Amino acid sequence: MRIRVDWRSSCSLSGTVLKWLAVPLSAPLVLAVIDGSDPTPFVVAVIVTALVGLSLERLSVDRDLGQREAFLMVALTWLCVAVIGAIPFFVAGVGTLAHPINALFESTSGLTTTGATVLEDFDAHSRAIMLWRQLLQWLGGLGILVVAIGLLSNLMVGGAQLMETETQTRNVRKLRPHIADTARLIWGLYVGLTVLAAATFYALNRLGVAPEMTLFNAVSHALTSVSTAGFSPEAESVGAFSPIVQWSFVPFMILGATNFVLLYYVVQGNYFQPLKNEEFRFYVGVLAAFSLLVVGVLSVDSSFDRGLEPTIRHGVFNVVSMVTTTGYASVDFDLWSSGAKHILFLCMFLGGMAGSTTCSIKLLRWLVVLKTLYRNLFTSIHPQAVRPVRLGDSVVDEDTITDIFSYVLLVLVIFFLLTIVVVVDAARDPSTAVSEFDALGAAASIFLNIGPAFGMAGPMGSYEGFSVFSKSVMIVMMWIGRIEIIPVLVLLTPAFWKS
Amino acid sequence: MRIRVDWRSSCSLSGTVLKWLAVPLSAPLVLAVIDGSDPTPFVVAVIVTALVGLSLERLSVDRDLGQREAFLMVALTWLCVAVIGAIPFFVAGVGTLAHPINALFESTSGLTTTGATVLEDFDAHSRAIMLWRQLLQWLGGLGILVVAIGLLSNLMVGGAQLMETETQTRNVRKLRPHIADTARLIWGLYVGLTVLAAATFYALNRLGVAPEMTLFNAVSHALTSVSTAGFSPEAESVGAFSPIVQWSFVPFMILGATNFVLLYYVVQGNYFQPLKNEEFRFYVGVLAAFSLLVVGVLSVDSSFDRGLEPTIRHGVFNVVSMVTTTGYASVDFDLWSSGAKHILFLCMFLGGMAGSTTCSIKLLRWLVVLKTLYRNLFTSIHPQAVRPVRLGDSVVDEDTITDIFSYVLLVLVIFFLLTIVVVVDAARDPSTAVSEFDALGAAASIFLNIGPAFGMAGPMGSYEGFSVFSKSVMIVMMWIGRIEIIPVLVLLTPAFWKS
Ligand SMILES: [K+]
Ligand SMILES: [K+]
Repeated sequence: MRIRVDWRSSCSLSGTVLKWLAVPLSAPLVLAVIDGSDPTPFVVAVIVTALVGLSLERLSVDRDLGQREAFLMVALTWLCVAVIGAIPFFVAGVGTLAHPINALFESTSGLTTTGATVLEDFDAHSRAIMLWRQLLQWLGGLGILVVAIGLLSNLMVGGAQLMETETQTRNVRKLRPHIADTARLIWGLYVGLTVLAAATFYALNRLGVAPEMTLFNAVSHALTSVSTAGFSPEAESVGAFSPIVQWSFVPFMILGATNFVLLYYVVQGNYFQPLKNEEFRFYVGVLAAFSLLVVGVLSVDSSFDRGLEPTIRHGVFNVVSMVTTTGYASVDFDLWSSGAKHILFLCMFLGGMAGSTTCSIKLLRWLVVLKTLYRNLFTSIHPQAVRPVRLGDSVVDEDTITDIFSYVLLVLVIFFLLTIVVVVDAARDPSTAVSEFDALGAAASIFLNIGPAFGMAGPMGSYEGFSVFSKSVMIVMMWIGRIEIIPVLVLLTPAFWKS
Repeated sequence: MRIRVDWRSSCSLSGTVLKWLAVPLSAPLVLAVIDGSDPTPFVVAVIVTALVGLSLERLSVDRDLGQREAFLMVALTWLCVAVIGAIPFFVAGVGTLAHPINALFESTSGLTTTGATVLEDFDAHSRAIMLWRQLLQWLGGLGILVVAIGLLSNLMVGGAQLMETETQTRNVRKLRPHIADTARLIWGLYVGLTVLAAATFYALNRLGVAPEMTLFNAVSHALTSVSTAGFSPEAESVGAFSPIVQWSFVPFMILGATNFVLLYYVVQGNYFQPLKNEEFRFYVGVLAAFSLLVVGVLSVDSSFDRGLEPTIRHGVFNVVSMVTTTGYASVDFDLWSSGAKHILFLCMFLGGMAGSTTCSIKLLRWLVVLKTLYRNLFTSIHPQAVRPVRLGDSVVDEDTITDIFSYVLLVLVIFFLLTIVVVVDAARDPSTAVSEFDALGAAASIFLNIGPAFGMAGPMGSYEGFSVFSKSVMIVMMWIGRIEIIPVLVLLTPAFWKS
């Protein structure tokens, strides 16, 4: 068999990314030196990433990626960065992270902006290790933005395909025809939002209303809120902070899951541009509707008796956290009533807007699904009628619709198979109590890159209790989920390698 | 608002069906007289159905149904027959059936060929009542055959649309261009298969290998096996019979879920026609693969220690029962290991072949879904390639593909929402123990018209324990599931009534 895909180019470009990974790795290295903790884990990682990166980079000089090479490059880069990202955790070898599968789980969970943790004793780890955890998420968010909007946008199912149907995106592309410009624009917005978040959080500390929000905490949470990623150096997540701090997280989670092209318009002064966008209106409506629903359920729940403001706050915060796929928790929602927990569970499948750092299915796809279902009902009554599905001013073409339905169906089927793997695997060991609902939650949370779930994997819990087998499967599923399945499935297609 | 749909025609045709319902109702009436049990329940039902039927029939003389009128007629007929079918149960008023919701549940479960029961004390009911229960299922199976292949075939999503792409169907239509002929052909096959099943079962009795298989039992089970419906007058279902009887059920369940057009070919002497059909080969492959899987899991399960033949028999029987959506059980599979139960659960979503009495999603749709997914992977590597999805010799058109994906997605989403309703409703009452898995099973079993599930609703259990609210929702969902969602959704679309 002659391999026709130019895998050398893909590896070479992945190598460049790995080489540059030394730069973010130097941040925790410096912090370790300042704090007087052990810098070895980061020194090892820098050396490995530089060596691997430079070696891979040499595989090719001509790095003009076609469709197939781009798929391979995306899959490969996420995988390699996750493995190298695990090195500091493994070398430091503190607590549960000393096990290589746990180290890889934490690193993959970070890079894929999932936020599921295997940590148990949060205080045992150095600040440098905790910062690396947060930084991995921020890098993962940036990576997905680049894939979703910039360089490789045409690879995401219904992502840019759809965004191109939106007039504003086309205009942006006209304005800034060069990929490098688009990437710079996105990068600038992302850095700007992160700085704004850190400044806001730390300002609350300086104003005296957030004594726990140290500079370290402010930066750490800025890194994982704008990236809708959800790791926290605090064992109690955002529940560790005062009400006003909890409220201050909400806008940053919402912004992180908003299409960055829309944010660009706002920065340019077109403040009402988002309101003209159908997906944005749907996004706001979904957040409002589900918040209202959870607040309603909590307020009639006698076991959750906390007064008006806390009920609204916890309802809104955790719905926003789930829909945007951030995965912070303001309270242990695993203790909520069955109804409230099931609504949060449904929120997991929504996701924010396409073209953002959000994970899960994304509202753009759901919007097309809903519109197509309604269209098909109409044409089943009027078989002769031709009625295209419209989004904003544009017509969504039928191939894109099939792609979107395929994608949503694939997500649901794979999520369900993962649930079965987790629950059947757990049933073999009578000492782990994983109910069907816990397994559904964990599978959704892992595959849709959200983070916490229910039961053992609840917001105050840890994934450490799952078997090594289950955790290994979860690592693969976080990776597949984050790069939206297709690049991995394509790699498994014989036609990818031949012809 | 002026209503533009000709609802009078729809009601009139439903009336004709209701009028004729008096004929099958007279069978249990006669049995009641022979047995000396109370005939009143059936007398009342005959009078009601005749009166309602004749009144509705008079609403229109011109009964030329368009697309919309046909939708309305299908939805209405299933609903009315279910309500009238409940009258004997309610009037007899024995045991759990004395409650009107339970009577309607049993009747709807019967007519929709679901086979979920609220009976608890099977011996308390007269043979006439038990026969009516079985007859309702046989009528439901016949009704769906008429809808799927005959009269209204173009209404089913991807059903006849797809069958028309199969050359053999087109040939049958050429051979027998009249709807009445098609209906007669189907009706003949269905009656023939039922008689063959009854004769086979009773022959086993006369041969002395099945003492429990009385003539009543033979007829009762023939009525519900060929219709893939699953009610049994025995509390232990098919577990009440000897191994050879259990084996003898397997071919009739398989035949009931085989496309009747293919069976017609075999009857005509084209014995190898089925093997040329791609869906049939897929059907046989699915049955074999899942049987093998369950037999394998059972044989390594130390708690299921029954020897080789029983392991194979129970594995094959229950997989065939689930895939064909019959819902008989040869053993209490609720006691099986988590792995075996989850495989059975997955089987629920498959269904047999289109154009049969089977329920659930059906393998024709899954085949198109799989082929489309593979096609889309191919075109994501080769964006310029045009590669239609083929089934047998024909190309499946893209509109049909979108319809099928919409349908499968709708089924999964509605199933999941039903699960949540059931489990959250059950959680309000601490005395009912409905786990998430029990709720998943019950929701799938109800909505996909299979019958038994797990836990309380297991094959030896009863749906009686669910709340009146949950049971009412289930009644609606059995109805929606059986007529394949779209006719009901269409009725809720404003465009149906206007324009
Ligand atoms: K997350
Ligand atoms: K059934």
